[in-house]
Amino acid sequence: MSRVITLTTDFSSDDPYAGVMKGAILNTNPDVTIVDITHSITPQNVMQGAFVLNLAYRYFPKDSIHLAVVDPGVGGERVNVILRTSTALFVAPDNGLLSYIIDELSLGESYLPESDELTSVRLKKGLEAVAITDPRFWREPVSSTFHGRDIFAPVAAGLSLGISPYEFGEKIDSLYVLPVPKAFTDPIGNRVGRIIYVDHFGNLITSIKSADLPHDDVAFEVAGERIYGVMRYYEQGEGLLAIPGSSGYLEISLKNGSAADYLGARIGDMVQAIIGR
Amino acid sequence: MSRVITLTTDFSSDDPYAGVMKGAILNTNPDVTIVDITHSITPQNVMQGAFVLNLAYRYFPKDSIHLAVVDPGVGGERVNVILRTSTALFVAPDNGLLSYIIDELSLGESYLPESDELTSVRLKKGLEAVAITDPRFWREPVSSTFHGRDIFAPVAAGLSLGISPYEFGEKIDSLYVLPVPKAFTDPIGNRVGRIIYVDHFGNLITSIKSADLPHDDVAFEVAGERIYGVMRYYEQGEGLLAIPGSSGYLEISLKNGSAADYLGARIGDMVQAIIGR
Amino acid sequence: MSRVITLTTDFSSDDPYAGVMKGAILNTNPDVTIVDITHSITPQNVMQGAFVLNLAYRYFPKDSIHLAVVDPGVGGERVNVILRTSTALFVAPDNGLLSYIIDELSLGESYLPESDELTSVRLKKGLEAVAITDPRFWREPVSSTFHGRDIFAPVAAGLSLGISPYEFGEKIDSLYVLPVPKAFTDPIGNRVGRIIYVDHFGNLITSIKSADLPHDDVAFEVAGERIYGVMRYYEQGEGLLAIPGSSGYLEISLKNGSAADYLGARIGDMVQAIIGR
Repeated sequence: MSRVITLTTDFSSDDPYAGVMKGAILNTNPDVTIVDITHSITPQNVMQGAFVLNLAYRYFPKDSIHLAVVDPGVGGERVNVILRTSTALFVAPDNGLLSYIIDELSLGESYLPESDELTSVRLKKGLEAVAITDPRFWREPVSSTFHGRDIFAPVAAGLSLGISPYEFGEKIDSLYVLPVPKAFTDPIGNRVGRIIYVDHFGNLITSIKSADLPHDDVAFEVAGERIYGVMRYYEQGEGLLAIPGSSGYLEISLKNGSAADYLGARIGDMVQAIIGR
Repeated sequence: MSRVITLTTDFSSDDPYAGVMKGAILNTNPDVTIVDITHSITPQNVMQGAFVLNLAYRYFPKDSIHLAVVDPGVGGERVNVILRTSTALFVAPDNGLLSYIIDELSLGESYLPESDELTSVRLKKGLEAVAITDPRFWREPVSSTFHGRDIFAPVAAGLSLGISPYEFGEKIDSLYVLPVPKAFTDPIGNRVGRIIYVDHFGNLITSIKSADLPHDDVAFEVAGERIYGVMRYYEQGEGLLAIPGSSGYLEISLKNGSAADYLGARIGDMVQAIIGR
Repeated sequence: MSRVITLTTDFSSDDPYAGVMKGAILNTNPDVTIVDITHSITPQNVMQGAFVLNLAYRYFPKDSIHLAVVDPGVGGERVNVILRTSTALFVAPDNGLLSYIIDELSLGESYLPESDELTSVRLKKGLEAVAITDPRFWREPVSSTFHGRDIFAPVAAGLSLGISPYEFGEKIDSLYVLPVPKAFTDPIGNRVGRIIYVDHFGNLITSIKSADLPHDDVAFEVAGERIYGVMRYYEQGEGLLAIPGSSGYLEISLKNGSAADYLGARIGDMVQAIIGR
């Protein structure tokens, strides 16, 4: 039995949809604790949802159930799935929303996807996936535009009651992923990545892992600016700073301000770590 | 005993008022589960709150308590009330905020209000209402501008402990409603409604019930555009779509975009379903 | 044992940081009830956080734990602290975020700070403070930019389990405060204060305590406008109103509108109560 269900959606907190989904969860399991990770994923931005989900889920109690809905294809041909890892359960559409999690657990640093499109990948041993096909647990009639309420919520709540994933459908061996942006080392030894998330402080979270960088003799280029060295915390520096972020990714920050606004930087922009300077 | 209290207000989540109301609830019943439906009702827009409350409450466990506060007249002459239906309890000001619920349960499709103003309507059998007049349960001193904290919160929490509604005041037989916008069939057989809610995806929720429409041989006119047929889900179509929304109302959507922005459409705009074309 | 942990931060609800902090709390105490006061403190605005925390905490059950993070100096030299009062526990950086609470409980109306800077003040008897220095309870490795997740969350959760504050570090006798804006009486007998908070309705909350004012024979000057008398609730008046706010401070409101927008008024603007007019 799990006691926590988290929610990651693009529903916003302004509309009643997230609240309605909680009502549907409590209808099945009134004792579960529901925690919002965020409802502010940019509408239909599956990869942003995938990034945030992977960043957040690991800080929750073991075997928490993570319900994620960023789902432009709702009601169509994409399948709804359950993924069980050694530490957590996920309930989501099979549309790339689990890309970061699968990449980290099944594919690893070396995986280079061949295209920008959804690709089916075989799961490593230890990961179990189920296609949610058994309507027994669904809220009927199922709306073709709100699976969050009618399928995902009762399934997540059922899982939290200790019902086996295999009660909800058939085992499957592969899931779909979208390519996860990864930093690489260029021919002259620099580490090249991109901005993958901008938080509301204006911090720029990059695809460069802090662990892959030296602390000294490194400079960064982003949006035409150069930043020298890695700071450990905000007050240590002045102006633009490169900091090992709390999730393992290098972040570009502006002391007492928004690096995003100052640099006019956006998701997808290139960041270079020039090593040995 | 009820285990869930939901909140629907225009307090926003930015200010501390919703949190304070939760503190006041937990002071009376520390074991209740509190769920936000939304705190983003447009300030003082009673009918928007009424619509959202009616849309959301039905997905919560039976006998949940729904606390709603959109209350420009707080502290004045309007009365605070409890409404008990066969499936839920409501705690709210008697200012029209329960209009959709009363309309659906007491008045029905045929009710045509005579004016745009608050009208007292007699409740059908099976609905019980109480005027909250007994200060025993209130937080003293009662602020004349924050009944949510000092009256509604402790009353809702008291109800969740299983205290009878009649402990909080006297039975009343009628409540006030504002006119609920309803679609009608015009002389040439078309169904005519209005946009009643715009969600953050830009979907336009109309007053036309999907059940009143054929799936084929129907076109829609909204903001000078014409849309042919009813789709079942977003990916089925292209551009502007008419879709049976998840709450029973016809929605106008734009695939991969905001119908509201594309059409410049707003709450109150007319939508026509042209049947047999 | 405490059953409630409240959160007051500048993390926003859009990013996953508040959710992650909740995960870290539930990891230590899965049975605690977590309530958001707000995550919308203006980024790095310590005094706004201090004001909101002091406004809100008193409405929660006795011995609730109030976790507050507005922390531009995170990772640097400022200390993390626990403050225990006779009614509540606070977990926060020692950077002025507890200023309003300490001012009210330790310093009182007569305290006039000598500068605009952080000042160490001795706590009155009955208040206990602890510097959080014992890493036993921390999540390791501690991120130098996210103490909310790695230090504050597990410490607050540990306190909620009934662990004594003294298990987390050493007793200290003083904490840092920033000057709390206070109204004063000018030589001709008028009460002079400032706008200290603007809520999303556009109400202007001032530093003038309603209890210090007569109800009659008083007028207010703010942003070049004059308002006569004190109203008890919004519907009692017309246009601009002065109202005793729900937290004890005088508020300037606009009936059916935003006083902030109408007046172009901002935090810090002067408000004068002209008494005897």
